[in-house]
Amino acid sequence: MTDAEQTELRRRFGLRLASLRKSLGWSQEQLSLESGVARSYLGGVERGRHNTALVNICRLAETLGVKPYALLDLDGEL
Amino acid sequence: MTDAEQTELRRRFGLRLASLRKSLGWSQEQLSLESGVARSYLGGVERGRHNTALVNICRLAETLGVKPYALLDLDGEL
Repeated sequence: MTDAEQTELRRRFGLRLASLRKSLGWSQEQLSLESGVARSYLGGVERGRHNTALVNICRLAETLGVKPYALLDLDGEL
Repeated sequence: MTDAEQTELRRRFGLRLASLRKSLGWSQEQLSLESGVARSYLGGVERGRHNTALVNICRLAETLGVKPYALLDLDGEL
């Protein structure tokens, strides 16, 4: 997997997370408070800056009321 | 999410990965060589010792020929 593909993967994950969050009408601050994931980190995740790990993926999914795999249902092939 | 729940999550992810790997008849060494994920790290992932991050989750899924979300289809609720 190339660096560009990794960047694209993080970007898609961030977009997916933001999309699910917005579908609930939640702000980043609200998701941060509910999930315990720091607001500044969460912002970076949504902008594709972080290589988010299993525990935070599942923590965010649980908070949003979806299964962890729903956050990895990234559109299209890399 | 409690420490025990995080441990359980990592454990289930490791079991899921090992199950998919074995279904292809692959050794850890083979998956390591094909994916570029270090053999010692991969062993730790399968034993639930690591909080594997997005890029490695997707790298392993790609190598195993499954979608990333297939690796997060963990049985049962936490």
